Amino acid sequence: MRPSGRTTDTLREISIETNVTKHAEGSCLIKCGDTHVLCTASLEGRVPPWIKGSGLGWVTAEYGMLPRATTTRNRREAAAGKQSGRTQEIQRLIGRSLRAGVDRVALGERQITIDCDVIQADGGTRCASITGGWVALRLAVNKLLKAGDIKEDPLTDHVAAVSCGIYAGQPVLDLDYAEDSEAGTDANFVMTGSRGLIEIQSSAEGATFSRDEFNALLDLAEKGVDDLVAAQKAAVA
Amino acid sequence: MRPSGRTTDTLREISIETNVTKHAEGSCLIKCGDTHVLCTASLEGRVPPWIKGSGLGWVTAEYGMLPRATTTRNRREAAAGKQSGRTQEIQRLIGRSLRAGVDRVALGERQITIDCDVIQADGGTRCASITGGWVALRLAVNKLLKAGDIKEDPLTDHVAAVSCGIYAGQPVLDLDYAEDSEAGTDANFVMTGSRGLIEIQSSAEGATFSRDEFNALLDLAEKGVDDLVAAQKAAVA
Amino acid sequence: MRPSGRTTDTLREISIETNVTKHAEGSCLIKCGDTHVLCTASLEGRVPPWIKGSGLGWVTAEYGMLPRATTTRNRREAAAGKQSGRTQEIQRLIGRSLRAGVDRVALGERQITIDCDVIQADGGTRCASITGGWVALRLAVNKLLKAGDIKEDPLTDHVAAVSCGIYAGQPVLDLDYAEDSEAGTDANFVMTGSRGLIEIQSSAEGATFSRDEFNALLDLAEKGVDDLVAAQKAAVA
Amino acid sequence: MRPSGRTTDTLREISIETNVTKHAEGSCLIKCGDTHVLCTASLEGRVPPWIKGSGLGWVTAEYGMLPRATTTRNRREAAAGKQSGRTQEIQRLIGRSLRAGVDRVALGERQITIDCDVIQADGGTRCASITGGWVALRLAVNKLLKAGDIKEDPLTDHVAAVSCGIYAGQPVLDLDYAEDSEAGTDANFVMTGSRGLIEIQSSAEGATFSRDEFNALLDLAEKGVDDLVAAQKAAVA
Amino acid sequence: MRPSGRTTDTLREISIETNVTKHAEGSCLIKCGDTHVLCTASLEGRVPPWIKGSGLGWVTAEYGMLPRATTTRNRREAAAGKQSGRTQEIQRLIGRSLRAGVDRVALGERQITIDCDVIQADGGTRCASITGGWVALRLAVNKLLKAGDIKEDPLTDHVAAVSCGIYAGQPVLDLDYAEDSEAGTDANFVMTGSRGLIEIQSSAEGATFSRDEFNALLDLAEKGVDDLVAAQKAAVA
Amino acid sequence: MRPSGRTTDTLREISIETNVTKHAEGSCLIKCGDTHVLCTASLEGRVPPWIKGSGLGWVTAEYGMLPRATTTRNRREAAAGKQSGRTQEIQRLIGRSLRAGVDRVALGERQITIDCDVIQADGGTRCASITGGWVALRLAVNKLLKAGDIKEDPLTDHVAAVSCGIYAGQPVLDLDYAEDSEAGTDANFVMTGSRGLIEIQSSAEGATFSRDEFNALLDLAEKGVDDLVAAQKAAVA
Repeated sequence: MRPSGRTTDTLREISIETNVTKHAEGSCLIKCGDTHVLCTASLEGRVPPWIKGSGLGWVTAEYGMLPRATTTRNRREAAAGKQSGRTQEIQRLIGRSLRAGVDRVALGERQITIDCDVIQADGGTRCASITGGWVALRLAVNKLLKAGDIKEDPLTDHVAAVSCGIYAGQPVLDLDYAEDSEAGTDANFVMTGSRGLIEIQSSAEGATFSRDEFNALLDLAEKGVDDLVAAQKAAVA
Repeated sequence: MRPSGRTTDTLREISIETNVTKHAEGSCLIKCGDTHVLCTASLEGRVPPWIKGSGLGWVTAEYGMLPRATTTRNRREAAAGKQSGRTQEIQRLIGRSLRAGVDRVALGERQITIDCDVIQADGGTRCASITGGWVALRLAVNKLLKAGDIKEDPLTDHVAAVSCGIYAGQPVLDLDYAEDSEAGTDANFVMTGSRGLIEIQSSAEGATFSRDEFNALLDLAEKGVDDLVAAQKAAVA
Repeated sequence: MRPSGRTTDTLREISIETNVTKHAEGSCLIKCGDTHVLCTASLEGRVPPWIKGSGLGWVTAEYGMLPRATTTRNRREAAAGKQSGRTQEIQRLIGRSLRAGVDRVALGERQITIDCDVIQADGGTRCASITGGWVALRLAVNKLLKAGDIKEDPLTDHVAAVSCGIYAGQPVLDLDYAEDSEAGTDANFVMTGSRGLIEIQSSAEGATFSRDEFNALLDLAEKGVDDLVAAQKAAVA
Repeated sequence: MRPSGRTTDTLREISIETNVTKHAEGSCLIKCGDTHVLCTASLEGRVPPWIKGSGLGWVTAEYGMLPRATTTRNRREAAAGKQSGRTQEIQRLIGRSLRAGVDRVALGERQITIDCDVIQADGGTRCASITGGWVALRLAVNKLLKAGDIKEDPLTDHVAAVSCGIYAGQPVLDLDYAEDSEAGTDANFVMTGSRGLIEIQSSAEGATFSRDEFNALLDLAEKGVDDLVAAQKAAVA
Repeated sequence: MRPSGRTTDTLREISIETNVTKHAEGSCLIKCGDTHVLCTASLEGRVPPWIKGSGLGWVTAEYGMLPRATTTRNRREAAAGKQSGRTQEIQRLIGRSLRAGVDRVALGERQITIDCDVIQADGGTRCASITGGWVALRLAVNKLLKAGDIKEDPLTDHVAAVSCGIYAGQPVLDLDYAEDSEAGTDANFVMTGSRGLIEIQSSAEGATFSRDEFNALLDLAEKGVDDLVAAQKAAVA
Repeated sequence: MRPSGRTTDTLREISIETNVTKHAEGSCLIKCGDTHVLCTASLEGRVPPWIKGSGLGWVTAEYGMLPRATTTRNRREAAAGKQSGRTQEIQRLIGRSLRAGVDRVALGERQITIDCDVIQADGGTRCASITGGWVALRLAVNKLLKAGDIKEDPLTDHVAAVSCGIYAGQPVLDLDYAEDSEAGTDANFVMTGSRGLIEIQSSAEGATFSRDEFNALLDLAEKGVDDLVAAQKAAVA
């Protein structure tokens, strides 16, 4: 029995509110249960030095967590003077994941930065950031297409992510914090709308896991991503 | 004529939504027109070293702005590796202002940290942070009083803040960004609910200002703070 | 009765020794009682990126305190690896104040950096830095005028600053450290030679202050700045 | 055809030289083809604050790359003033992986730090660090057992890692740099000696990957880890 | 012929003004020609962790240069966020040199920190810092002796320093900046009042130097240190 | 009697293995007894800004120590976020020393960076770095000469270094760690193959030293450098 009463293959309630800030080219507030992430997409005038003159575009991401997004207050990274290893790992993952759904030639030599700021955390913030980040990216790209700044849609497919894990001996979909902190194995799956795999990160916590267990997690993830992609479609319609 | 069509002594529309995050002891989302600040109050287990054993409490504040709270994206301070001088100046002001309304003996030896994170900026973020920060503080202190952890209310009065300035030659209340970027003089006033002065920061931008002009700004500020305090009262009722 | 025996509207003894270092384009050692600040003006080959090509000049300031300028030794900021929030706040104030007396078109596209280093501190270091900084700036600009590098005097007026406060219930001029550490309200006023207001920073310490009290402080400040401007005139004559 | 001429399921030549430094409690120089990593295990007097008094041990890792371990010189991280996101991600992975093979109760309240320094890089440095790091850990633990400082062996199994990828459309084992820089998908697998899964990190580079492709990579990894564990056994015999 | 007209074995004019700041336990302003260094000695409540409980004292030094101590302005180290390698090298030298003249048992478990801040630079700042730093230390120790806080004088001898170099092919004493920037070899000698050698740092700039040349520099240094020690004696008398 | 049983004028056993990494333009692993330093020379595409367009070359050095090169583990400088004063002092010495043997006109406008990474430390790491660094430099320059990229050999002579000290009252050559930690005086000598002096750094530890003692150390150093230069010649033959 899961703490939330969900069945093993049920996502938390998901809501994606779009255009939540007036300045960003694209934005949404994604809520996966009690995990709330504000995602904005910013079209930037500069591109990284290594692509200057290449004609290729770039999509990158930054991640942050408000100090009191968590049950006890965490030190503000700006005050600490650096981003933690965890933060850097997450933002590298978000950027890499979103780029997997982008045709960088079609995007043209411009950079879009996705900022994912966790307003409230209850597990699964990196997955929510990817799913919500894609929506912000989609909206920003729509604006470019509408303005005629780019001709062909550079987004080749949806990109969404979900965590699965082995909780109380059973594979379950979309861990919340209560489950995550107890789970024996914790895996994040990033996929396209057509179930193409982009990224798998699976870690044993305590006991190791078997191939069979891993396959059960991946089965759950496929279902979960289908549901998330449906929510993305509804949001950007 | 103000860009927003407001009269010279009219605040922007104000809304204060309370209890917006499930983890913080007190929280609100304050909106002063298009300036939106999320304020949380965190009761912290630790106190600064210099008050250990003194029996006195401490209230402090931190301030941040999401990278795309502004019209163009600003570099994330955590990525830059330090808080800007402006950020430090603002968070020192917020902490100092709120402490002026706190009886530190009644609070007892505990620290409350107010985090003010600007979700969307349109001028006056430091004032909105103070006004909203007080609401978050009030709610957190209410929780302590209700739990019987403190006996006497340590909050001696409301604390609220507003900016005034000389725009197009005329003193006006509550500058928005369009006015702020053009204003000849820009002043921030922090006051209590009974119009006691806590902090005045007034700067010439370009031309200097006269005592008469300054007095006109202070007149406006008194009216504005009255309105803000009324909004605080409604929010925490 | 003030600890120093001064009447409420008397400045500390002021001395401004000019041309105290052989390298700087302008320099002075300002002594306001036991507060001693070395101010140098450096003509710099570079201008900030945002004014390149604008034809406008720039005046900026940096502030520092020698580790043993104070009663007990303070950690050296260079060793700590960053400037404190207080330092940044002060140097931003000095720069902003001095720029208010500069015609940036007449200055032309060049930068003058004012370094204010506190050799010995006894309260009021930021005000002494502004008053002395203006003298260093005046001397450096004189050199440019004499050399024919600029045609019109870009300094539109004197700029000087003084602190006032409510000590033992009474408004007094030019707080020394003994007073400052006890004062109920502490205000810094920056003005031009013709009493135009440039900056007001007034803070309650403990009790709030009233408009009447504030006005009494401003009355004192006007007198004090008159005396400081007279000292500046004598120094650069 | 692989650039090295290896068959798809062949590891690079592996050598593990033990006890290569006289100071460390355990050490080895692991060579996986042209990737050479010096691994040392240091028994440390201190434990992290969060396990003080718990009776539990801790194993952690740090990773570095000499500036000229690579084809062109990389900036020294100590000179840059921080570890890159990549470095932090790798060292977190190494520590997490090794801990999965440690009984922290049996280890007792002590910390062992594994330093993995890449002397020469040719792809797969994080996997070589894990495989070599385990050998250094094994040797350090042997010393503790021999000295009677711990009674029961805290190492529950071997831990080794290998990368696989899809190169020129074909799943191959143990990518070298020439392959890695061209591979469509790149996956790192960390396993125990009994093929228990500890960590999977699989990323699409360009095209996404299918479940079938992923399974082929995992098949190769199982074979590769068997060979690496055999090499570990020979080294510590 | 030296630029200053001095003979090869003549020091620059030296002046040591003592007790120049009211807060420090010991202080002096040392002028070696146009090189001016403010030296303060601070008795600190804390000792470094590694001598706690040892009963031994510690003397350490910090060095800084005001931004416009030099012909062109140098970036403020506090603003740059770190001390340069040169600064660290110099302050390590000053501390090491002064400790060589201290009986750390007689000093007792207390720390004295010598701050050497260069007000104006014209070559030889590290040597002036050592010579002046010793005077500040002497005065602070005198205060401790007078107060009866320590019984036996912990200063075993004078410590002074001078630079010599080969300028225009000739060994000369006490290089000023004009000479230093042209010198073929530059050497710093730290000695006690009885000509015991504490530190030698001699570097070729361009051509190498011979033993004979080195010996000529050392001969000059012995004379120079005799003169400096005489000036120290006069200053602290 | 020396701990190692060596006579007072005997170097530790020296071995210099060349071309130890496949990427660097020049490299060696130098072993001076139990002190092992990996030295690489990297030809860099960039030159420092101050020599751009001058036609002159540049040789610089960086130094690091693996965390467990020492008897107890030292904190990794990259993790600490900065290089220690000691590290900066050493790498400045290495660069300065090697440049003394380089004709920068003949080298042409290119930079060679020497990285010296201490794999195992037993005293004398800076001297081993200089001696080994010269070998790496020699090999990289040979490659440039062979390729015809430079016409004339820019290396004017060998550069080698050795430490001497007064151990148990007696001058001895090439201190190992056991001696170094006890030595009364510790001196490092850098010389050319023809005994030209490049750098002398001699420090009293505890007692001061006399000119006679210093001369005895220099006598030993001359012999030691002769032997080191012979080893360099054999290595690069």
